[in-house]
Amino acid sequence: MDDATLAARLHEALLTRRLTVASAESLTGGGLGALLSGTPGASETYVGGVISYATGVKQRVLGVRAETVAEDGVVSARCAEEMAAGARDLMRADVAVSTTGVAGPTEQEGKPVGTVFVGVAGPWGVSAHALHVDGDRATIRRSTCAEALSLVLFEVDAAH
Amino acid sequence: MDDATLAARLHEALLTRRLTVASAESLTGGGLGALLSGTPGASETYVGGVISYATGVKQRVLGVRAETVAEDGVVSARCAEEMAAGARDLMRADVAVSTTGVAGPTEQEGKPVGTVFVGVAGPWGVSAHALHVDGDRATIRRSTCAEALSLVLFEVDAAH
Repeated sequence: MDDATLAARLHEALLTRRLTVASAESLTGGGLGALLSGTPGASETYVGGVISYATGVKQRVLGVRAETVAEDGVVSARCAEEMAAGARDLMRADVAVSTTGVAGPTEQEGKPVGTVFVGVAGPWGVSAHALHVDGDRATIRRSTCAEALSLVLFEVDAAH
Repeated sequence: MDDATLAARLHEALLTRRLTVASAESLTGGGLGALLSGTPGASETYVGGVISYATGVKQRVLGVRAETVAEDGVVSARCAEEMAAGARDLMRADVAVSTTGVAGPTEQEGKPVGTVFVGVAGPWGVSAHALHVDGDRATIRRSTCAEALSLVLFEVDAAH
């Protein structure tokens, strides 16, 4: 299933359940939002998101805690969870999905290229998923978007 | 020049002048952020952005005024200017660029598909540019991203 088809399927799943979704992106930098907003009629389910590329934006806009950044780093499960929870609150969405990780070309916080965390926040709670994604910078960003859509779809299906 | 090359050129222009950039997107839904963050080393110039797909997000997060929405609509020069100015403040960036318009498939606020406004905010002030973009939904979104990058590059070059 290609990315656009996956996004359309998520849109349908959300629409059926009358749920809205928001995004909080670091390494994908807007690519996940572009997919979520790409389906015609997307405004019925996608409310928007934050691209928190800089650490300061993660903290000030999304409410990622200073302790999280200091202790676990921004490439961490805890940061992914706080980004998703923060976006859900800020955007007043039912569900939010976040991405943080190392797209390369160089490692970050001592974590190798391809280390990725996806957070999902919903009425049922918040979770984070660790991924190891292969490929160059563009491939890692694209694969992360597809994985994030799949994870939201799975959680929405499981919860309702 | 393709989109990625244009984004790389803007990154270089900003880096040379020690300027940072932020984004505020409606119809492009994250595609502009994906381009701004796509260049390796992008974190040196791109701080992040807001995808304000829903009108409420434009108002609550970016500070677009209720009068603007009521009088001019969200597909307007005034809305584009307020989105750019709001993103510049929220993201604490030197420059911000915004997109709002009608990607289709149907008209919006009585404005035809392809009506687009790009806002640019910098230390030199705020401006909006009206565009009429041809094509289907995906083409309009993609062309708007390229036009937005070109407009920021032009304004950065002109100002410094």
